[in-house]
Amino acid sequence: MDKTLEQAKRHQKIRSLNEALDSGSLDQVARILNRGLSPSDIAHLLESTPPKERSILWRLVDKDLEGEILQYLSDEVRTDFLSKLNPQELVSITEDFETDDLADVLQQLPEKVIQEVLDSMDSQDRHRIEAVLSYAEDTAGGLMNTDTITIRPDISIDVVLRYLRRHRSLPDMTDKLIVVNRKDEFIGTLPITTMLVASPSSTVREVMNTDAVTISVNTPDTEVANLFERRDLVSAPVLSSEGRLLGRVTIDDVVDVIRDDADHSLMSMAGLDEDDDTFTPIIKTAKRRAVWLGINLITAFIASAVIGLFEATIEKVVALAVLMPIVASMGGIAGSQALTLVIRSMAVGQISRNNLGWLLNREFIVGIINGTLWALVVAGAAIVWFNDLMIGVIIALALMINLIVAAVAGTMLPVILRARDIDPALAGGVILTTITDVVGFLSFLGLATIVYA
Amino acid sequence: MDKTLEQAKRHQKIRSLNEALDSGSLDQVARILNRGLSPSDIAHLLESTPPKERSILWRLVDKDLEGEILQYLSDEVRTDFLSKLNPQELVSITEDFETDDLADVLQQLPEKVIQEVLDSMDSQDRHRIEAVLSYAEDTAGGLMNTDTITIRPDISIDVVLRYLRRHRSLPDMTDKLIVVNRKDEFIGTLPITTMLVASPSSTVREVMNTDAVTISVNTPDTEVANLFERRDLVSAPVLSSEGRLLGRVTIDDVVDVIRDDADHSLMSMAGLDEDDDTFTPIIKTAKRRAVWLGINLITAFIASAVIGLFEATIEKVVALAVLMPIVASMGGIAGSQALTLVIRSMAVGQISRNNLGWLLNREFIVGIINGTLWALVVAGAAIVWFNDLMIGVIIALALMINLIVAAVAGTMLPVILRARDIDPALAGGVILTTITDVVGFLSFLGLATIVYA
Repeated sequence: MDKTLEQAKRHQKIRSLNEALDSGSLDQVARILNRGLSPSDIAHLLESTPPKERSILWRLVDKDLEGEILQYLSDEVRTDFLSKLNPQELVSITEDFETDDLADVLQQLPEKVIQEVLDSMDSQDRHRIEAVLSYAEDTAGGLMNTDTITIRPDISIDVVLRYLRRHRSLPDMTDKLIVVNRKDEFIGTLPITTMLVASPSSTVREVMNTDAVTISVNTPDTEVANLFERRDLVSAPVLSSEGRLLGRVTIDDVVDVIRDDADHSLMSMAGLDEDDDTFTPIIKTAKRRAVWLGINLITAFIASAVIGLFEATIEKVVALAVLMPIVASMGGIAGSQALTLVIRSMAVGQISRNNLGWLLNREFIVGIINGTLWALVVAGAAIVWFNDLMIGVIIALALMINLIVAAVAGTMLPVILRARDIDPALAGGVILTTITDVVGFLSFLGLATIVYA
Repeated sequence: MDKTLEQAKRHQKIRSLNEALDSGSLDQVARILNRGLSPSDIAHLLESTPPKERSILWRLVDKDLEGEILQYLSDEVRTDFLSKLNPQELVSITEDFETDDLADVLQQLPEKVIQEVLDSMDSQDRHRIEAVLSYAEDTAGGLMNTDTITIRPDISIDVVLRYLRRHRSLPDMTDKLIVVNRKDEFIGTLPITTMLVASPSSTVREVMNTDAVTISVNTPDTEVANLFERRDLVSAPVLSSEGRLLGRVTIDDVVDVIRDDADHSLMSMAGLDEDDDTFTPIIKTAKRRAVWLGINLITAFIASAVIGLFEATIEKVVALAVLMPIVASMGGIAGSQALTLVIRSMAVGQISRNNLGWLLNREFIVGIINGTLWALVVAGAAIVWFNDLMIGVIIALALMINLIVAAVAGTMLPVILRARDIDPALAGGVILTTITDVVGFLSFLGLATIVYA
């Protein structure tokens, strides 16, 4: 792949930084860190560094960069750094945070610390933060900033331009001004690109967009992300149920939701958390992984118990023990294809009662087609291998049964789990494996018992 | 979960649309479709609809909405619709496309059709498209629009404002103007938020940002996405290797890259393609899935062959057949945790030579800890179940071996595959399963053969 100049430069800096770290010349490390890299690059570097070196690097970072770096860190790493600060340090480091970022940070700290931080803020800032904190983290309310620029509908564009010039700077991602009435009720938006081409003498009301996308404060964050994706938004106003303007959501925060959402399915299917730090220390990692292994061990023991039912048959025909993993594993693969597809489609909101029937029907028929195809292949191989016609018939039937069950189970499981508020990405794989293992061993060894007993 | 008003309304419309579709009153369907829903909503609806109903809906869509809807469709669905048009229809439907979207569309069509479409365009448009088409689809060049607004450094802000007012509209996502010299070489950017607070008499040179992020035209799209994510960008200029301005990349296209990137790992691990249409018809689906099942069947046969080596031992101690899947499956689970973590971390650029050693070491030790823990549990259960001390010792040793091998293999595999330009998300799981199956059966049955033979 082609490396860009910017990337090459950054890699060069990180390499020299690592050399400096290895040689123990911390002065040099500090120099490269604070002068050569942007805060977001430093955050990325910290996340890519094992715990011990990470805390050395963090101590070498310039005090006035710390706040900005924190905003770019993932939850787990950030919480780790923040938990070592006292409330005074916390307040000074988070001084320049946007309200949504500060609320994010606070939500991860103990109740007592939150209160201390709030107490040490001035009352205006405290009210803003308390407003954001009162909404769940995974809603539009938890995602929003309160730094909106609002205007009234009856002034002219010329006045708006002069009003804007009175600001020292405008908030990042300001692509539209929000038009409100005296009671702060939302009326429309004035996209900046519209304002710039409008005649200075026209009024806001004449050129504003009254059809703009707005978001109600309790909208789940994944729904907000889908809306931004579908409508190509940069920012959107957040309204209370009475239509009052509360703040705005911006694309930079939505991108994080999209990334987390998409990662969530991938990581959950392996029993991992998308917020996990890649470089979590040994003991913490071992504990988290142990839980997942324990859950999967139950599945494995259930499968063993099923096999145990047929000890006598296996003793008579050992070839069964040789072939049985094929039936179980092919079922697992077929099932996980349907499962992954449905989990993915549900995440982007494509599955509903209207099309689930079609999907189930297709997966069922695909299960029959591929079940038949691979049953013939495996049966042929088994007959040649063990020189036994019946074993071929048995494994063919068992494979067909398991692939069809796998297709149906893989399609329905996410829907059933979701309806019960269980995360399909986390629980779906384990349950599916249990089903395909049990059905696979039961059908194969059961049929064999009928034939060979 | 809380449903928002907007969402509820859309669901209501889709429900009545489905009822109209069921009752066969196509006039009503067309009315709901074209008046009640935005183009992005219609695109989403089409993607959520099985093939037959989908083509009915598509035929009912207003001709002048078709172009915009196409831009929101995923590759597979869009190509399907477009392949049914002749070049004249193609030209008229894609008239209002941005250059990057049009290039995307053309890239999926046969060479002959591309040429016909290009021939029927006016020469300025054709040159623009040919420029974008000359870059690979998965680079900044393939991602960029050419609709930049450029200004010279020596004019005043007041003149810039008057210049902008001469436009009928500004391109979407214009958050900055790009400052170039006479030779179109990039000098800096003028963020619109900066321009709006600047004094009208100051010159562009005085207030422009000369430190802005720029992207070289050959930068891979995933690298562009990481840059946008890290720097919270809305748009960024794309430069040739000589520093000439070629176009700009905007966040809406980057969001698609981020979504595709994240989905890629999830879908590939199940042998699916992130571009696949959820409602692909039966035969096409069966074919694609069959390939993946065939590949995994090889793994299953290799595992069977290993078991086959120990038929004599199993015949003597049938309990081995009952317990052996536990060793293989626990190895698979432990390995896939390490594999998923590393694939994810590689995707966001966190893995390098500097930290791979630390990661490998951690996974190795975690493997020992969890191997020991669950070896004891499983050994205890096996001893009680079969009333045989030796079988407990054997399965404990086999489990430890397999969990440690799984941890090391899961960590190293993605790195090795990536170095050979093989997609770890696609190939990693299959290879890992082969390793954990072979090592699991070999160690368990091998140890048993030594003890019981």
